Amino acid sequence: MKIRISSTGLYLPPDIETSKTIAPIIGKSENWILEKSGVSERRVSKIDVDKMGAIAGKQALGELKKPDLIINASGVPKQTIPDTSTFFQKEMGFEGIPSFSIHATCLSFITAFHTASTLITSNAYKRILIISSDRGTRGRNFDEPESSSLLGDGAAAILVEASTKPDQSELIYFNMKTWPSGANLTEVKGGGTNKHPQDDSTSVADNLFTMDGPAIYKIARKQVYKMMLKTLKNTKLEKKDINWIIPHQASGKAVEAYTSAGGFEKDKVINIVSKFGNCVAASVPMALSIAVQDGRIKRGDIILLIGTGAGLSAACALIKY
Amino acid sequence: MKIRISSTGLYLPPDIETSKTIAPIIGKSENWILEKSGVSERRVSKIDVDKMGAIAGKQALGELKKPDLIINASGVPKQTIPDTSTFFQKEMGFEGIPSFSIHATCLSFITAFHTASTLITSNAYKRILIISSDRGTRGRNFDEPESSSLLGDGAAAILVEASTKPDQSELIYFNMKTWPSGANLTEVKGGGTNKHPQDDSTSVADNLFTMDGPAIYKIARKQVYKMMLKTLKNTKLEKKDINWIIPHQASGKAVEAYTSAGGFEKDKVINIVSKFGNCVAASVPMALSIAVQDGRIKRGDIILLIGTGAGLSAACALIKY
Repeated sequence: MKIRISSTGLYLPPDIETSKTIAPIIGKSENWILEKSGVSERRVSKIDVDKMGAIAGKQALGELKKPDLIINASGVPKQTIPDTSTFFQKEMGFEGIPSFSIHATCLSFITAFHTASTLITSNAYKRILIISSDRGTRGRNFDEPESSSLLGDGAAAILVEASTKPDQSELIYFNMKTWPSGANLTEVKGGGTNKHPQDDSTSVADNLFTMDGPAIYKIARKQVYKMMLKTLKNTKLEKKDINWIIPHQASGKAVEAYTSAGGFEKDKVINIVSKFGNCVAASVPMALSIAVQDGRIKRGDIILLIGTGAGLSAACALIKY
Repeated sequence: MKIRISSTGLYLPPDIETSKTIAPIIGKSENWILEKSGVSERRVSKIDVDKMGAIAGKQALGELKKPDLIINASGVPKQTIPDTSTFFQKEMGFEGIPSFSIHATCLSFITAFHTASTLITSNAYKRILIISSDRGTRGRNFDEPESSSLLGDGAAAILVEASTKPDQSELIYFNMKTWPSGANLTEVKGGGTNKHPQDDSTSVADNLFTMDGPAIYKIARKQVYKMMLKTLKNTKLEKKDINWIIPHQASGKAVEAYTSAGGFEKDKVINIVSKFGNCVAASVPMALSIAVQDGRIKRGDIILLIGTGAGLSAACALIKY
């Protein structure tokens, strides 16, 4: 699909929380955190997801004219109703732009990017602003040391448009799979009709993030590897043809697996998990935006966005930037 | 776009709650409810949204082979993580089918239907099952008589595929607009990062549905009318060419406005609000499925799906069934 990422935007909350700070709260040592989660520090936002996303969105737009669609591609909403995309638009000062969400937990961005590409190639929209903004630190359960030491806050945005001839950018390949047999491996049970806040049986923990990290890692490594091989086969590309791997920053171990198990050179795998933690759906577009903005990613580069999300789902998008 | 709705599915919870039953709970008379909301009875589900949606989904699939994408297009999720689409798939007994949500509150179905159409015409997927399942009665605030007498439970599903030559079904036109200036007119403030259940300042009412019905009606009537005129103009159709109007069943008054203000014959406007209430995102596909299954809607009919949702958003999709 002949689409291009015209611009990127980022919001990195200024407040840094080190793993040294969090260690006594979760009853573990700093070394335990570094070993288990691979996160040395994360950002903790004082502003809510709508304001965070709007800052990233405005940076992506810059002096460019306003988008004709805003897609929220975050992991967790601002509130149940209305949709978070509405609040992004409100904070950006726009009015009248169609707005909705695409949700696939940590894979919301990759899924939204593919969907936005079909909306553009179908001529439904011309300029789609995708915003991922997550404040995972709000849902940390400090009684679950591994997951609570993983989560961080951040937001990123990209503008997607039809590709122009000179740069020949495109979405080369997309794939997604969901295995509900893994639905209980990552959960926030509250927030909907299941464990409603007004029910006496709903506990505080029901509203917090819970994850069986080792079980997910075991399935994810196998399924993501299969998906990667299928992507290469279907696109007739080899590993060496891929300039950058942008994995979901699930954990230090998950990101490193693209080198140790996946066989990609370490410096080709964009790694932001150590400095920013797992920022849920915002991780992939944050890593992309950081590597574009620091000059590593250049026009024409072949990039594989890939990862797993609660569901359990795996997805990937191979693009020519 | 050359797509067709191959089949429909419904789940109407068996338990009926009449307005006579609800009247003393909200401190109003039965007549007050009938006048304000136009709802004489609604269904109250004992099973959760995933099971409801899976029944509708299975009915839509029947003996047909499984879909290659499942989209959840509901107003409120089962829980924050993982995505409700995963739970639909789990309840239907499938594994490995990509699944995600499209969320635009009451307009989730219309938005998802348009998006699914672009996914099909882009050859990304061939058989997309869209499920809308809402259990609005879980979020009723009985201190707000008007909105709490409106909400009902229900689920519906449709299977979307590429159009085949003989029936020449298609999505003729789609339009959507969102005005965040109306974001506070319909809200459930809890369920996300804004009013987190663990915050002391979050009240029970924050997790319940609140709506300024008269204010929305005033804006909605004007904006929907404008959108309707634009749809007719852009498709070069006249009111008489439209066989069926399927409005979001916001309230009795909102549905009747398509006749009194919109100028459409009363029997062309599918009205299920009196018997089922406002079923959030499920209202539009429920009304569609009911009218297809009772034989009113026939292949070749021109149908306008239209309505407003929290945001404030308005959307419409004109289809040849």
